[in-house]
Amino acid sequence: MTTVDDLSGPARVAEAGEGITAEELRLAARNHGMPLEALRYDVTPAGLHYLLIHYDIPDLDAASHTLTVDGHVDTPLHLDLAALRARPRVTRRVTLECAGNGRTLLEPRPVSQPWVLEAVGNAEWTGTPLAPLLREAGVGDGAVDVLFTGADHGIERGVEQDYQRGLPVAEALREEPLLAYEMNGAPLLPQHGAPLRLIVPGWYGMAHVKWLRGITVLDRAFEGYQNAVAYRLRQEAGEPGVPVTRIEPRALVRPPGFPDFMSRARVLRPGPCVLDGRAWSGHAPITRVEVTTDGGDTWADATVVRSDDEWAWRRWEYPWTTEPGRYTVSARATDASGRTQPVRPQWNRGGFANNLVQRVDVAVLAG
Amino acid sequence: MTTVDDLSGPARVAEAGEGITAEELRLAARNHGMPLEALRYDVTPAGLHYLLIHYDIPDLDAASHTLTVDGHVDTPLHLDLAALRARPRVTRRVTLECAGNGRTLLEPRPVSQPWVLEAVGNAEWTGTPLAPLLREAGVGDGAVDVLFTGADHGIERGVEQDYQRGLPVAEALREEPLLAYEMNGAPLLPQHGAPLRLIVPGWYGMAHVKWLRGITVLDRAFEGYQNAVAYRLRQEAGEPGVPVTRIEPRALVRPPGFPDFMSRARVLRPGPCVLDGRAWSGHAPITRVEVTTDGGDTWADATVVRSDDEWAWRRWEYPWTTEPGRYTVSARATDASGRTQPVRPQWNRGGFANNLVQRVDVAVLAG
Repeated sequence: MTTVDDLSGPARVAEAGEGITAEELRLAARNHGMPLEALRYDVTPAGLHYLLIHYDIPDLDAASHTLTVDGHVDTPLHLDLAALRARPRVTRRVTLECAGNGRTLLEPRPVSQPWVLEAVGNAEWTGTPLAPLLREAGVGDGAVDVLFTGADHGIERGVEQDYQRGLPVAEALREEPLLAYEMNGAPLLPQHGAPLRLIVPGWYGMAHVKWLRGITVLDRAFEGYQNAVAYRLRQEAGEPGVPVTRIEPRALVRPPGFPDFMSRARVLRPGPCVLDGRAWSGHAPITRVEVTTDGGDTWADATVVRSDDEWAWRRWEYPWTTEPGRYTVSARATDASGRTQPVRPQWNRGGFANNLVQRVDVAVLAG
Repeated sequence: MTTVDDLSGPARVAEAGEGITAEELRLAARNHGMPLEALRYDVTPAGLHYLLIHYDIPDLDAASHTLTVDGHVDTPLHLDLAALRARPRVTRRVTLECAGNGRTLLEPRPVSQPWVLEAVGNAEWTGTPLAPLLREAGVGDGAVDVLFTGADHGIERGVEQDYQRGLPVAEALREEPLLAYEMNGAPLLPQHGAPLRLIVPGWYGMAHVKWLRGITVLDRAFEGYQNAVAYRLRQEAGEPGVPVTRIEPRALVRPPGFPDFMSRARVLRPGPCVLDGRAWSGHAPITRVEVTTDGGDTWADATVVRSDDEWAWRRWEYPWTTEPGRYTVSARATDASGRTQPVRPQWNRGGFANNLVQRVDVAVLAG
């Protein structure tokens, strides 16, 4: 008799030199990153924002969808979309990044969604703040986690589940988290969680539960799969590990010049140009971006454009005059908490939070 | 001195057993297919339609963008978007599929954008018909090809180029092709060719030139890279090969049940269900879809839903009652021209037009 265990293997790390597998490719073909030239847009257009869907996009009807708030509360609530839309409305520009961004740059490679560096986007999310709703329900004394349940259903590493994530109650009661029903001024697209999703500014993507149908206040820590098994920093398989939470600082370079189709090598003509890109952190605002064009031998400060959006990426730019030759360009972000990007990879078994500095190879051809 | 040839290698075929390479992965991370559960939507929502971008998405301004019609014509034309929008307006529902869809299922694997089976979408394209514009310019006697030039620029297999495709003049003068400025009722998204693209119903995606800036009537066949070098069916590298043109028939199954995150294995509970999916062909309307649930030993006719949209996919469905066990499900499309899908792969060096029947492995667990 076939069981779940026959279909769903444990997490593993690739062998030395093992190419990307058919399984990883199937994930790459359905999920997608943001093509890095889209770093030019302050707000990422629909369809260019990164997308990571654990199971299938569920088929939900906005007209009949409801959200339940229950558990360790005084007054359970049950709201439809009209009720949520009638509540106070807030729009926030927020950078979302997948916790696995940069995974395939680790050696050995953790086998999962095979991100290179494109798993990011910056969108305008509109919805109603979460905290007042929780206060209305009345969070009981001794609440520990708030559990968010999505309508997407599947199996992961042998565990059949609806997608569920617990968030510490103190985070859930901050001002920032939203129950979002619009993205970039339009109703949520199916793949971004229609008709309702959670937005937790500053946190990696796994916290922003899509297709949200339930909120349950717990008087204990949530020990379900996505918190206790996945999304933890571990060196060895058996360790409890450290939870993945807020986004580590990262800067990306908008690839200059034009590309080769297959190698994605970047080509420039000699002369003055401006390098630019975006930088973000989920811990604190970006305060500094440094650029190197010689593979890290020397770094110089880029100009960081100020922004009032605390949880959105910031544009940076750096003037560069090129001569024929080959160059390796990188940018390195530092935030107001003092966190900065490492120049050597910090490996973990899940391939999470790898904010190693990007390296962009550029060839300047003779004019 | 670095040259283009140092950055851009020739096309190649993977070694036996060679995993997906870092180059292929970078393409998979930026381009994306349609997650197959989106076969449920008759019109593919923005951001779920497949996307294949040879170079970078260019940064074009709709307000200043112009289209030139020149070459072997009586009266060259120069139109801005307002002029195109003032012309007759037509909306067509059209299925687009990348010519490379199915590539990684070939053995040995041609090394290029590593599609599995998701490179498809069905959208509503709105624009103005091409043929009247060509007639207005006055196509000269002896015209052979109409060349379409996009604003996207890059290098491919050693050739620096703007993306350009020639279309036989008889095809360009058919009623169907559109100069499209809207998709699904909204202005084109940047990644789908904003502000203007060509739509050639029935043809594989390479013909639907995005970011269209020029139309040039030629009194000879276009011998540029995308027609003469790429997009040809070849067994050996040196052959002239056969041009890739219209979409071969294909049916896809909407994956039933729910998935395992990593393996994408499909899981069902026992009992009655309805298998469904879509089928399309660029040669003629779909007339028949057959389904097998036993790996091809036996086939039965599915119900094909009629449609007035000649170039859009058609829904099919097939009732199925399952018992615990393992099954391999496939659907096979046949069109009114008599073309059908092969059950054995038809290999070519570019990995084009591989319409081998899909195989979906399904496990029905004990209830």
